[in-house]
Amino acid sequence: MIVPIVRLSFYLMEQTSPSTPSRQSPDVLISEVGPRDGLQSVKVTMPTADKCRWIDALVAAGLREIEVASFVPARLLPQMADAAEVVRHALTHPGVTVMALVPNLRGAEAALAAGVHKLTIPVSASAAHSLANVRKTREEMVAEVRAIVRLREALAPGVRIEAGISTAFGCTLQGAVPEDEVVRLAAELAEAGAEEIGLSDTTGMANPAQVRRLFNRVRAEIGERTGAAHMHNTRGLGLANCLAAYDVGVRTFDSSLGGLGGCPYAPGASGNVVTEDLVFLFEAMGVRTGVDIERLIAARAPLQAGLPGEPLYGMTPEAGLPKGWHAAA
Amino acid sequence: MIVPIVRLSFYLMEQTSPSTPSRQSPDVLISEVGPRDGLQSVKVTMPTADKCRWIDALVAAGLREIEVASFVPARLLPQMADAAEVVRHALTHPGVTVMALVPNLRGAEAALAAGVHKLTIPVSASAAHSLANVRKTREEMVAEVRAIVRLREALAPGVRIEAGISTAFGCTLQGAVPEDEVVRLAAELAEAGAEEIGLSDTTGMANPAQVRRLFNRVRAEIGERTGAAHMHNTRGLGLANCLAAYDVGVRTFDSSLGGLGGCPYAPGASGNVVTEDLVFLFEAMGVRTGVDIERLIAARAPLQAGLPGEPLYGMTPEAGLPKGWHAAA
Repeated sequence: MIVPIVRLSFYLMEQTSPSTPSRQSPDVLISEVGPRDGLQSVKVTMPTADKCRWIDALVAAGLREIEVASFVPARLLPQMADAAEVVRHALTHPGVTVMALVPNLRGAEAALAAGVHKLTIPVSASAAHSLANVRKTREEMVAEVRAIVRLREALAPGVRIEAGISTAFGCTLQGAVPEDEVVRLAAELAEAGAEEIGLSDTTGMANPAQVRRLFNRVRAEIGERTGAAHMHNTRGLGLANCLAAYDVGVRTFDSSLGGLGGCPYAPGASGNVVTEDLVFLFEAMGVRTGVDIERLIAARAPLQAGLPGEPLYGMTPEAGLPKGWHAAA
Repeated sequence: MIVPIVRLSFYLMEQTSPSTPSRQSPDVLISEVGPRDGLQSVKVTMPTADKCRWIDALVAAGLREIEVASFVPARLLPQMADAAEVVRHALTHPGVTVMALVPNLRGAEAALAAGVHKLTIPVSASAAHSLANVRKTREEMVAEVRAIVRLREALAPGVRIEAGISTAFGCTLQGAVPEDEVVRLAAELAEAGAEEIGLSDTTGMANPAQVRRLFNRVRAEIGERTGAAHMHNTRGLGLANCLAAYDVGVRTFDSSLGGLGGCPYAPGASGNVVTEDLVFLFEAMGVRTGVDIERLIAARAPLQAGLPGEPLYGMTPEAGLPKGWHAAA
């Protein structure tokens, strides 16, 4: 893995000023998870029309992959009862990959029927978390992924399937998660037919050394099927972990506008990495995200309108863009 | 600069679990600036006895370099009127480097008379900021450093002198600061006799690519005199910038307990990097800081007691240490 690291180090060192997203194709893909991960983590249910207005604003900011809903029984997650309707609205935006989370085959059937472009399936690396979260063992979840892949072949061959390995960096139930088990699970999920296998720091326990080491090991095992870094900011390391993932070649990053969701443990402790700060990190480094950061910050308004009183996080929106930002861009 | 980067990347990748600070000598030096940088940024003045109790708690946590005061006219900074008294108390702790900020020769005389181990002199890389901050040009400040070095030789040859280049990564007055000017200023300050030349992101405008590039350029120019990274978290990039500095060989990091001070621009936007989160970052990576993170978090109590109602920042204190932390350590 030495070569990519060196190249990346130099690449980073060569970067100069903020880039101009509009002109060139992005260097990284920011996958916005707020409408799913964020909204299912808050108690109140955002009205469908507000969800759609928020998604429109996210698209207007330049986001090209959005996880818009979760296909789960409405009695379990009333916040997601309108998943199919939200997907239909999101599909009206050309050039946007409309993504949905599905925990099982039934959810996948509904999501494919709704017309999503991409499915994401959470698979816990922690045996304890897997049973607690989906009442299935890891092996049963791998079998579920295989079944969903078969369903996709039959119904919608063009749809991409991502398996997101949750608790990949540690678990609040069992503590440490052996890296060998994460690497083996990634290999099993690739063998099961998932096109992308991402690593999620569900519990905010990851550190940059671990992120570099584990992504390197997973890439050595499954190569280009290595997927997104889904980092949390629970202990303030979210952006440092994203930088570490970028350094070892990760190019897709999950984040949430306003840091909404991601099960924060403590008041003020944002769960998901804040999209606004993540985009600022990359654009400031000269790494193109394709996102207009000012329109992105403007997308907080429809989010807040749909969730009055819900706390939003983000340092860049509070501090504003630095003097000379536009000149540099 | 390719070799160190590769080595560091591998070094990081080899790291495994949190370390046991007590057993081995630290890998990095955390230089706590709260009692100076933090306290001079808040309106109220912390009583001397509270300052001393807070410093005692910082020492008990394992911090070995503390910037305890600023030697400036009391009419300008009443919060620092008791600088000599605070220095005298800090000196009662064996093994702690007692540091003070001095803006000029007169301040250096007072600090040396008080018995400090180390002086830090702020020198702006931004011409505009230099005039606004100390009413001197950069050239006049370099001459001031030279005069302070001569005074040190005469009065206290054992005292170390650090020049901290402020606005090294950008300026809120003039915007971008040319990197060539920062590198030249670092060379001039080394030539003037400063043993350490640090780079400060006074305005929270730095990004990791810039941090790697500029520290590499400064080290290529002045070698081992390259000093601390003083990063701010204004836009959430504080820890990512510290990681970037670590990656290119920086081993001294300034930070402030509770993120106190550092002129935050907005509510919730911490200025200085939060010591608690910085120590968590390194210890989680297996990089030894010599700091006991639980005692460090406990040091927030005397700080809060001395500054009732003052907001303290920090994600790790809010979220707590992850499950398995002690087992791993």
